[in-house]
Amino acid sequence: MQKRLVGATLGIAALALATTAAAQFKPDELIQYRQAGYLFMSWNMGKIKVNLDRDYNEAQVADAANAIAAIANSGMGALFVPGTEHDIGEVKTHVKPAFFENPDDVRELAMDFNQKANELAKVAQNGDPNAVGAAFGEVGKACKACHDKYRAD
Amino acid sequence: MQKRLVGATLGIAALALATTAAAQFKPDELIQYRQAGYLFMSWNMGKIKVNLDRDYNEAQVADAANAIAAIANSGMGALFVPGTEHDIGEVKTHVKPAFFENPDDVRELAMDFNQKANELAKVAQNGDPNAVGAAFGEVGKACKACHDKYRAD
Repeated sequence: MQKRLVGATLGIAALALATTAAAQFKPDELIQYRQAGYLFMSWNMGKIKVNLDRDYNEAQVADAANAIAAIANSGMGALFVPGTEHDIGEVKTHVKPAFFENPDDVRELAMDFNQKANELAKVAQNGDPNAVGAAFGEVGKACKACHDKYRAD
Repeated sequence: MQKRLVGATLGIAALALATTAAAQFKPDELIQYRQAGYLFMSWNMGKIKVNLDRDYNEAQVADAANAIAAIANSGMGALFVPGTEHDIGEVKTHVKPAFFENPDDVRELAMDFNQKANELAKVAQNGDPNAVGAAFGEVGKACKACHDKYRAD
């Protein structure tokens, strides 16, 4: 997983696939799927933080980091297709309109996040808490970089 | 990831960790995290189905299968701790009370699901749609086995 080229994640090939993959889902479902992905990643970030702050369990951290990376690598760009920019009924989106107006910047932020998530998953396999702490911090910065610009809440 | 012993997922070690990992989260958060995990897996199951039904894209299927397996392997047992059996305010759980009363049966179902998810992730790397189709069917059966018994909706 970590070996795959991150550049493909939001690249042309992925966008072409996005059309296919999105076609079967309704826009409100796509919003809920992307929120689920980020929420599940946040649980795993929280678990890693607990491990870094208290007793470090190598297997738990590795599993959590793998989940974050695999979700990041699952082509989440397909969940931000046209039609998902606004609230749909009871389904509220927290993505600012600017997100959809700056695809190049978003792509750069997303690629950076994926790279950092893959790096975290890689170092987590080795079980060195210091290395994991550093990689974890980088993932957190990559999350925040996008949230600061494009998350409204 | 696939090489890790599935048996540890809901085993004694995992349950001990669950206590640590759950301590920082409130019960309503734990319910939302588990729902997010299953919802994100369902999106990836849906993508694999589209690939099997129409044009098969090896990378997309492998990424989706990896996400399902990594989520399954992330220690979701920690999201079903005491205090999460019932609705909490606006947060509704769809887990039947019987789920919490039959830990041995639940463990068996969960281990079977993890094994099938790991097998799907493994065969998806090889890109043979027929093998993926068979493994995908097994994952679907494992999902349904638990839903039929323990999901209320």
